[in-house]
Amino acid sequence: MRRESPLTHSITNNVVPNFTANALLALGAAPAMVDIVGEAGLFAAVAGGMLINLGTPTPEQRGAIREAVAGATASGTPWVLDPVAIGSLPIRTELAHEVAQARPTAIRGNASEILALAGAGSGGRGVDSADSPDSAAPAALSLARRFGSVVAVSGPEDLITDGSVVVRVANGHELLTRVTGGGCALGAVIAAFLAVRGERSALEAVVAAHAVYGVAAEHAASRAEGPGSFAAHFLDALANVTPDEAAAAARIETAS
Amino acid sequence: MRRESPLTHSITNNVVPNFTANALLALGAAPAMVDIVGEAGLFAAVAGGMLINLGTPTPEQRGAIREAVAGATASGTPWVLDPVAIGSLPIRTELAHEVAQARPTAIRGNASEILALAGAGSGGRGVDSADSPDSAAPAALSLARRFGSVVAVSGPEDLITDGSVVVRVANGHELLTRVTGGGCALGAVIAAFLAVRGERSALEAVVAAHAVYGVAAEHAASRAEGPGSFAAHFLDALANVTPDEAAAAARIETAS
Amino acid sequence: MRRESPLTHSITNNVVPNFTANALLALGAAPAMVDIVGEAGLFAAVAGGMLINLGTPTPEQRGAIREAVAGATASGTPWVLDPVAIGSLPIRTELAHEVAQARPTAIRGNASEILALAGAGSGGRGVDSADSPDSAAPAALSLARRFGSVVAVSGPEDLITDGSVVVRVANGHELLTRVTGGGCALGAVIAAFLAVRGERSALEAVVAAHAVYGVAAEHAASRAEGPGSFAAHFLDALANVTPDEAAAAARIETAS
Repeated sequence: MRRESPLTHSITNNVVPNFTANALLALGAAPAMVDIVGEAGLFAAVAGGMLINLGTPTPEQRGAIREAVAGATASGTPWVLDPVAIGSLPIRTELAHEVAQARPTAIRGNASEILALAGAGSGGRGVDSADSPDSAAPAALSLARRFGSVVAVSGPEDLITDGSVVVRVANGHELLTRVTGGGCALGAVIAAFLAVRGERSALEAVVAAHAVYGVAAEHAASRAEGPGSFAAHFLDALANVTPDEAAAAARIETAS
Repeated sequence: MRRESPLTHSITNNVVPNFTANALLALGAAPAMVDIVGEAGLFAAVAGGMLINLGTPTPEQRGAIREAVAGATASGTPWVLDPVAIGSLPIRTELAHEVAQARPTAIRGNASEILALAGAGSGGRGVDSADSPDSAAPAALSLARRFGSVVAVSGPEDLITDGSVVVRVANGHELLTRVTGGGCALGAVIAAFLAVRGERSALEAVVAAHAVYGVAAEHAASRAEGPGSFAAHFLDALANVTPDEAAAAARIETAS
Repeated sequence: MRRESPLTHSITNNVVPNFTANALLALGAAPAMVDIVGEAGLFAAVAGGMLINLGTPTPEQRGAIREAVAGATASGTPWVLDPVAIGSLPIRTELAHEVAQARPTAIRGNASEILALAGAGSGGRGVDSADSPDSAAPAALSLARRFGSVVAVSGPEDLITDGSVVVRVANGHELLTRVTGGGCALGAVIAAFLAVRGERSALEAVVAAHAVYGVAAEHAASRAEGPGSFAAHFLDALANVTPDEAAAAARIETAS
């Protein structure tokens, strides 16, 4: 990651671009956000990885997202779909179903969002999940097989599947849910890991992204006095954690 | 607040959504920002409280704001109007007068903004106030009576009125004015307090929001070395302050 | 700066407005961001200084930028153009060439952006520069003469010219490149320094902005443990650095 500094394109909601870009920079990636019609598709084609986050999809962003997905598809750029708060909100729900047809490399969401994208579930409460990750396991498997995507369900323990293998990552910290963009920035980090995955599978890259992110959160939480200091420590930890430290602290379980 | 975790909907300007969401999360509320036409009204109807902040009102946001105000009104969601920098800037000024007709539960602004909304005053200088809170007291009383709103005028000492009682809150710190969104995030915090007010009056909820916010600022300022470290300490303090500490440190004076 | 508190108007990309406003507030300036059609031009006319940053130019912002440049020109407000990531992205490239005709007081960019604006160069990689500041020196001189602007090329050592004198500022720190908006906020800081330059030349004001900004970065880096804590320390340092400290630590070389 630090050697390759992958150009990571994010089209994301208006609450989190700053935190998202800072998380990518801390990791050593090169963030860029090009979310206007006429440029988003061109940029998707040259980026190393891309995030599409549906948190605040203005009409301009909706056009840019369609362009960007087409550009990434045409040029083989790996990309991540984060279907924020779909289910009860109609515009983003329809858009999520539409762009999922383009077969994202990875899909990341909370349990309610994954259930909604799979056509099941009760609908979330904005960005909160009303469902547990385990309850979304069948939906995650189904989505993974339908779109050929790696599907990651965030929760106290993350559940990640490529449609056959199911991996659980137990790293992370509750304080990450007290900083806005904790989940959204993870989507961009996944895109950056996909960009530099080389010979590894997409599943391995998505799992590694979750583990590094979660380990950094644990480091930060051990020093934080609340969510404000946690956010600063977390960016420091993303910059300072070594591959060996992350590997040693990762809590990953695989079942198939 | 921490037990109920009220879903707090903010349509706000593009400078402060991150800080606003983090302030709400620190307090224990659940922030969401849904500012597009076709979703904003639906979301306003299910939210526990809502903020309408006119800081950077794009055409899309203006449509979303009208929808959201209608949705909140129809479903009884309490909401806060923050008429940022009205007076000399025509589009937001007209919009503020229009949505005020829907009778916001609370109106928060600096003295210049409150004077402008009441149809008086000299006009502010962007987000700065050219007037003192006391000079806006008659305008605040008049607005409160006209729209049935609690009106809060921010300043070194905040002035809050429901049209009959006038309350002054002397908590806070000058460093809060050196962090962008210090006032804007308070609007969202007021919305969260209104969402969980139960049997208390709207006036009490607005006063409590100001006091907790101001006490947290004082805690943070005692440890900060400047505005950057203050912002982190402030979020920590919002998360850590107990109701007893806030009550003990609150400096509230009531006159009628 | 702290005495005059110049009203500094920024139309900037959606990733950095928060950090930009906080940098201005830390310095003692009064930030405002009015980026909608119908208000941007009016505000440009009353502001003390203005930044136009092309990082995420939505259609609404493009209209607002044209208005704002016309307003600033008509009223003599000094303004800064930051042609973010021009070269390969067509919409912003065309817009940059268009607004440059209005003769910005200053132009700030990395080497790739300055080369692209001068009609030369290989094109950047998003916000990264593929070229060194020295390689852009002829382009900077040419732009400065063509538009009567002070042109600043950011890099490990900044190169600043008014078309005859070339100044190099060696302050700064690598961590500033690990915080998103490190360059974008500098554009706003330049606008604030131009607003209060009094009898000094625009070149002196732009150089002073770079030196103060770079010295603050050095102070912050000496205490930071990574990019997250650096950002907080940097805002503290902008607020706390004295003119004497900045003058003593500035590393400025002038050639003509």
